[in-house]
Amino acid sequence: MRIAIDAMGGDLAPREIVRGAVAAAGEGKAEIILVGDKARLEEELTLLHPSGNLEIYHTDQVIGMDEQPALGLRRKQEASIVVATRLVKEGRAAAVVSAGSTGAQMAAALLILGRSGKIQRPAIATLMPTLKGPKLLLDAGANVDCRPEHLYEFALMGNLYANRVMGIANPRVGLLNIGTEACKGNEQTLGAYSLLKEAPLNFVGNVEARDILFGETDVIVCDGFVGNAILKFGEGLGQALFTMISREVKSSLRTRIGAALLLPALRGVKKQVDYTEYGGAPLLGVQGISIICHGSSNARAIKNAIKVAVRCANEGLVTALGDLPVISREGKMRECQSH
Amino acid sequence: MRIAIDAMGGDLAPREIVRGAVAAAGEGKAEIILVGDKARLEEELTLLHPSGNLEIYHTDQVIGMDEQPALGLRRKQEASIVVATRLVKEGRAAAVVSAGSTGAQMAAALLILGRSGKIQRPAIATLMPTLKGPKLLLDAGANVDCRPEHLYEFALMGNLYANRVMGIANPRVGLLNIGTEACKGNEQTLGAYSLLKEAPLNFVGNVEARDILFGETDVIVCDGFVGNAILKFGEGLGQALFTMISREVKSSLRTRIGAALLLPALRGVKKQVDYTEYGGAPLLGVQGISIICHGSSNARAIKNAIKVAVRCANEGLVTALGDLPVISREGKMRECQSH
Repeated sequence: MRIAIDAMGGDLAPREIVRGAVAAAGEGKAEIILVGDKARLEEELTLLHPSGNLEIYHTDQVIGMDEQPALGLRRKQEASIVVATRLVKEGRAAAVVSAGSTGAQMAAALLILGRSGKIQRPAIATLMPTLKGPKLLLDAGANVDCRPEHLYEFALMGNLYANRVMGIANPRVGLLNIGTEACKGNEQTLGAYSLLKEAPLNFVGNVEARDILFGETDVIVCDGFVGNAILKFGEGLGQALFTMISREVKSSLRTRIGAALLLPALRGVKKQVDYTEYGGAPLLGVQGISIICHGSSNARAIKNAIKVAVRCANEGLVTALGDLPVISREGKMRECQSH
Repeated sequence: MRIAIDAMGGDLAPREIVRGAVAAAGEGKAEIILVGDKARLEEELTLLHPSGNLEIYHTDQVIGMDEQPALGLRRKQEASIVVATRLVKEGRAAAVVSAGSTGAQMAAALLILGRSGKIQRPAIATLMPTLKGPKLLLDAGANVDCRPEHLYEFALMGNLYANRVMGIANPRVGLLNIGTEACKGNEQTLGAYSLLKEAPLNFVGNVEARDILFGETDVIVCDGFVGNAILKFGEGLGQALFTMISREVKSSLRTRIGAALLLPALRGVKKQVDYTEYGGAPLLGVQGISIICHGSSNARAIKNAIKVAVRCANEGLVTALGDLPVISREGKMRECQSH
């Protein structure tokens, strides 16, 4: 299986991207197509002595992190993310992996691959570390104005992913809300609740944000604005707490010794909450596999994202997503004929 | 100044509520009216030997945490939160403080006190611990379906509160969003951004959730659904991290010793993020002062909430809020005539 990597996308590109790709190739997980500037990539590869399973597809255009995605896409038809996505469309790669601009990656996926089956709104499904292992949250930011039927779609897609790719038998699917009772929420979640309680999945009802990290729900469904805000707040809270603890630790010798002794424990926690362990977040609902990685992804994150891509491809995720029953704009269920 | 306390509301009521009230009365901050079951409250008071400044207003009805607020209000016209709020309406108390059902407290405030001036949507303004001291976030959950003009109102109310009650000269007001650029966001935040950039306040633009806790913005404005979700996620994340660290700490003698030495530093952090330090969250935009406390408030939280209530009253907050220019339903600014 061949995986196309946007080698120029990400804060640590191309070095860490190439390292991750070489590691994945070395483990025989996949054959890798590195899309990017040939001279720059060969320079990186020379240092790494790759064992094979790697090729370079040259392009010298890149869409920057701060570029307006739609504009970037129009102006740079040979940008690395565009070329890598096109390789998937043309069947020359099974998936695309990128740590570059998320907006550009989504735009490329929507324009080049198109939406899958009757899915209206592709969504970013991200793994969150919880006390009971990683759980899925979607949408993490692809859709900022969702109607109830979109949340319904997210639930179906998340359920399928949790089942097929994460191997969870009967995923517990919950709706993120501001109270657990059925009567709680805004117009959007109240509407989604009524749809979800009739949905062909194990709907466990409303889940409050404070309960996500205790890991009792396998799939958390929410609007992309809310999902994105929560994920970013979590990131910020982690950093802020770390800063507060560091300040306090430095205040005395006693606490400095304590911190040194405690280091292995803190490393254990860090490993549990480290996003690089989980690799990338799939954009579910497009006609192909597109794995979105954190902008600051290192080699480890890229290697793990490639593994995720391979698993998605092996499990026939795209075909299965295309077969999902969805809800039409009028809010009526539209059963899929093919299954 | 007299403050009415819903002595029967909260997980630790009436004991901790009475203790907090006695402490505040003892410091001469205010004269306290404890609203609740006379026999029960006298029992608590006997243990505490209060120095005066306290009276009891008897009622034996309480609205429970799990009761439907509107229903509870209709059925229990003599519930402690209703009576306490009525004392404010009648001018017999300057403010009401409660750790009981937030829904019931809001409903009582809206029904009995009514909205302030031309404010359409009263909002809960909560203090968040940040690296640069407590900052204000609103709405924390009073309004789950907001239009841009509601966020505009929240900004004006938050700005006024930060200035008058928190004593910040020219509060930096930010809009919670999923990106910092002006073009980022959903329909609601895009609309709010255009209104806010013309608003008579120090609008600093969009703020991402990851930046809230670094404390560069004094007032963060958001929809109540989003605000509530973020606050609850923060609560859950704190608990989950604590559980993860405890697990790891227990794994060896070395880490257990480390943790013991580190304890003072951790206590320092705990104090920084401890909500009981900040007391309650005012419901801004009603025709009176109503301070909402966390359900699990202890005596310290209640005492601090009473201080907040006194400060709000001394600063003439309600009159000032009533004079704010707001935006009518048509989205057009409606300047206040009185100033």
